[in-house]
Amino acid sequence: MTTPNPTRDGLWLDDLVEGATFTTGTHELTAEEIVAFARDFDPQPFHTDADAAAGTFFDGLVASGWHTAAVTMRLVVTSGPPIATGIVGGGADVAWPSAARAGDVLRVEIVLREIRRSRSRPDQAWVVVEQRTLNQHDAVRQTTTARLLAWQRPRHD
Amino acid sequence: MTTPNPTRDGLWLDDLVEGATFTTGTHELTAEEIVAFARDFDPQPFHTDADAAAGTFFDGLVASGWHTAAVTMRLVVTSGPPIATGIVGGGADVAWPSAARAGDVLRVEIVLREIRRSRSRPDQAWVVVEQRTLNQHDAVRQTTTARLLAWQRPRHD
Repeated sequence: MTTPNPTRDGLWLDDLVEGATFTTGTHELTAEEIVAFARDFDPQPFHTDADAAAGTFFDGLVASGWHTAAVTMRLVVTSGPPIATGIVGGGADVAWPSAARAGDVLRVEIVLREIRRSRSRPDQAWVVVEQRTLNQHDAVRQTTTARLLAWQRPRHD
Repeated sequence: MTTPNPTRDGLWLDDLVEGATFTTGTHELTAEEIVAFARDFDPQPFHTDADAAAGTFFDGLVASGWHTAAVTMRLVVTSGPPIATGIVGGGADVAWPSAARAGDVLRVEIVLREIRRSRSRPDQAWVVVEQRTLNQHDAVRQTTTARLLAWQRPRHD
């Protein structure tokens, strides 16, 4: 395909360097947000009701892992690597070593691990990013390895 | 740990069989839902504004992959395998072969691929599930391989 329109002033493939690191801003997770997300997408007692959560696996209210993933995405989109054509992911491997809880102030640390140029389309690459979503005490709430698409800066001949 | 309290009447590890399949109910994705999710979690023009989405990578409004993941979770929690202690995931490998769009009627097909008993805690296992999130035309919007925790039915001696 031709180079897609940029969604913002930002980085093109030419600007990305393996090993570069980024740290996002922060987002404080509230009990209200945890419950609201879970009612829509993960209605289980340990995500929707602090009282009913007692004695369940998490023994208290925790965020859905998919909520942690969604907050992680928001942080990456708004204050991670500003890729000009946007954060376009083909897939991701996520793990939740511990569950996020109300009061967590989350941030994401990002490393551009590898840039895999397409052989058939050399203006295009998969960028493999490794991310850790941490709270204010550096507890790891999510690890993510994601594949993002990036393009070379278009030339205007 | 001891067996957590069940969150519903449902299946225990003893009841799960490798190769068992489940198909969830359906959820129709609307443009309003796509935009609302994206404003909260993935604010990029191809997810928030059909006009601004023209010419970008997706060339039109599409759901955030994390929205597809969240809808997938809702379908699995509400009409997938009714594991007694809930759907507790340690992590997942997700891919989006194509992006979900407004009007997609999504369902999830699930296979219990493998049951890995814990050596140190034989009453407990990781259940590896493979999922495909499909629309009404069988376009694959997400594939997921997830690890879920399950416990043996508690014995009341």
